[in-house]
Amino acid sequence: MKPLSPGSTIGVLGGGQLGRMLALAAARLGFDVVVMTPRADDSAGRVAARTIVAPYDDDAALAALAEVADVVTFEFENVPAEVVGKLQALGVETAPGPRALAVAQDRVEEKTFLNAVGAPTVGFAVIDGPADILPALDKLGAPALLKTRREGYDGKGQTWIESHADAHAAFDRIGRRPAILEARADFVREVSVIAARGRDGEVACYPLAENHHEGGVLRRSSAPTKASAATVEQAETIAARILTRLDYVGVMGVEMFELKSGRLLVNEFAPRVHNTGHWTLDGCEVDQFEQHVRAVAGWPLGPTTPLAHVEMENLLGEEADAWARLAAEPEARLWLYGKGEARAGRKMGHVNRLRPLKG
Amino acid sequence: MKPLSPGSTIGVLGGGQLGRMLALAAARLGFDVVVMTPRADDSAGRVAARTIVAPYDDDAALAALAEVADVVTFEFENVPAEVVGKLQALGVETAPGPRALAVAQDRVEEKTFLNAVGAPTVGFAVIDGPADILPALDKLGAPALLKTRREGYDGKGQTWIESHADAHAAFDRIGRRPAILEARADFVREVSVIAARGRDGEVACYPLAENHHEGGVLRRSSAPTKASAATVEQAETIAARILTRLDYVGVMGVEMFELKSGRLLVNEFAPRVHNTGHWTLDGCEVDQFEQHVRAVAGWPLGPTTPLAHVEMENLLGEEADAWARLAAEPEARLWLYGKGEARAGRKMGHVNRLRPLKG
Repeated sequence: MKPLSPGSTIGVLGGGQLGRMLALAAARLGFDVVVMTPRADDSAGRVAARTIVAPYDDDAALAALAEVADVVTFEFENVPAEVVGKLQALGVETAPGPRALAVAQDRVEEKTFLNAVGAPTVGFAVIDGPADILPALDKLGAPALLKTRREGYDGKGQTWIESHADAHAAFDRIGRRPAILEARADFVREVSVIAARGRDGEVACYPLAENHHEGGVLRRSSAPTKASAATVEQAETIAARILTRLDYVGVMGVEMFELKSGRLLVNEFAPRVHNTGHWTLDGCEVDQFEQHVRAVAGWPLGPTTPLAHVEMENLLGEEADAWARLAAEPEARLWLYGKGEARAGRKMGHVNRLRPLKG
Repeated sequence: MKPLSPGSTIGVLGGGQLGRMLALAAARLGFDVVVMTPRADDSAGRVAARTIVAPYDDDAALAALAEVADVVTFEFENVPAEVVGKLQALGVETAPGPRALAVAQDRVEEKTFLNAVGAPTVGFAVIDGPADILPALDKLGAPALLKTRREGYDGKGQTWIESHADAHAAFDRIGRRPAILEARADFVREVSVIAARGRDGEVACYPLAENHHEGGVLRRSSAPTKASAATVEQAETIAARILTRLDYVGVMGVEMFELKSGRLLVNEFAPRVHNTGHWTLDGCEVDQFEQHVRAVAGWPLGPTTPLAHVEMENLLGEEADAWARLAAEPEARLWLYGKGEARAGRKMGHVNRLRPLKG
């Protein structure tokens, strides 16, 4: 694909805050954005040149999207992989392609792929039914984490199994669906790397972020975080392997556990811009959203140089009601997503607190 | 007015690149934007939640705008001041108010106001007809600059008078319209200050920019530019006087001539975000567009601290065709306005080239 000239149209599947920030970045580079989302008045649609309101499997809507878009990307990883395949069959370029989605949508596929490309993970076992749990627990040790194979995010669809006695109840808790059992990682912290790959195969990584989750939901990220050169090299090597082997185009978030030994295990990757990369919006010359747009449009990747140290804090539910206080904090850069209802735990915005890189 | 809560709607009169960048900034803070512009498919409309396509004096359209907008601002200074008055009569808050527009729209009013508030300008004379020119030339000296009183921008509607013999022809060249004759300023450089005033009366100034025009059109700005503490204080005092005496709310660009003596003369002010403030998009924590949105929404002003030195270059006409090369420059941050036709001299985008503040 030739680099898309400004004035071209980028299609985005999904209408949430990631789509909104992608649309803002695309506009800065002179692109038009068309958002396809099942929900009218979604966050991203209100900053897009056009919105197609339809379920993702609506063939007429997909044809309309393929008609106007010069390339299509997506803002969340639960878009059915076959939808992306359909778009390609309609002759429109997509980035990333369906393979990354298909792999990321199934935790067993994902871990199998990761291990195959030399990206280490915790030990795991496939759980097709409750009978699989006890032998898996024997192999992996307790406690272990039971997750549905598909469609979990932000801590949903997962539960800890503390002992053999809890196995059946745990399977009930996740809705008796095909699952994976994961060994517990004895990690000292969670880090992530936001990596991008261009159409020419170039890979660029942002500095590592250190992440803190609560109840499975990201609370805050801090970046660039202190890490040894060996750790950084390990993280970048792993990310490059994943992106290259998937022939990936775009930005990806790779979450990792850092063990006491300094070894990194990949927890999961998300084939899209990532919440732990929001610090780049104010901390880097080119943020992850522009980087993704550049990659998807076939442009050269931008620099990933940090300009400031950023502490990113998610604003969940009514925490966003503190906007007046946050707007008055001199070091706080406020991002609000334009969502109507502040349901408990819903990501309503985030705040980036800046401090100089040195000192 | 109470600070507008996120989710509120900001109306913008005008659909050009300044409106587009205002809309992007508003979206970041969770606001919806409705753009009113006479031209469908204008640059700003394509990133706004809604666009009203109508001439500015269309009463039904203004009523519709007043209905949906919680506050209305404008992106260029040739919106008729009475339109802003009409909106206020319809009960919608506007910022800035009609007074700043009225003063800025008439060069004689503007200079008279400036001198009255202690903001020095070049000498000038009112030209109602060709008979006024010769006595004015005697008073001000030749060469002098003849400008229409109203509606000139980017060097349009103005011409130099080199000698008495040229007076009548010069009046023809500007279309025989009411005019002002301005003495030539013997300046060493052109600088500007981007200043903001909040609803609480707080004034904040960005560091000075040094500007280079060609053929009346801004080519590039460089900021923060080196200036003595006395010069900076002078510029900030002048800006604060202008904003305060107009009871101004929002961002204003004040262009000045710096004389050899270090004295500053105000050339003109624009009651809106300003081309010489585009460097703040990548050079400051809070850029001029967010600053304007904050002021208009009744939020506290943000910091005007520079994070980097920026050389801003306008991309005029087909210069924007160099996007591929510019996108590959690591220090260049590219802003393209999504305009269709690259007419000669048309502002299609700009590029901010960053370097560290020190060194």
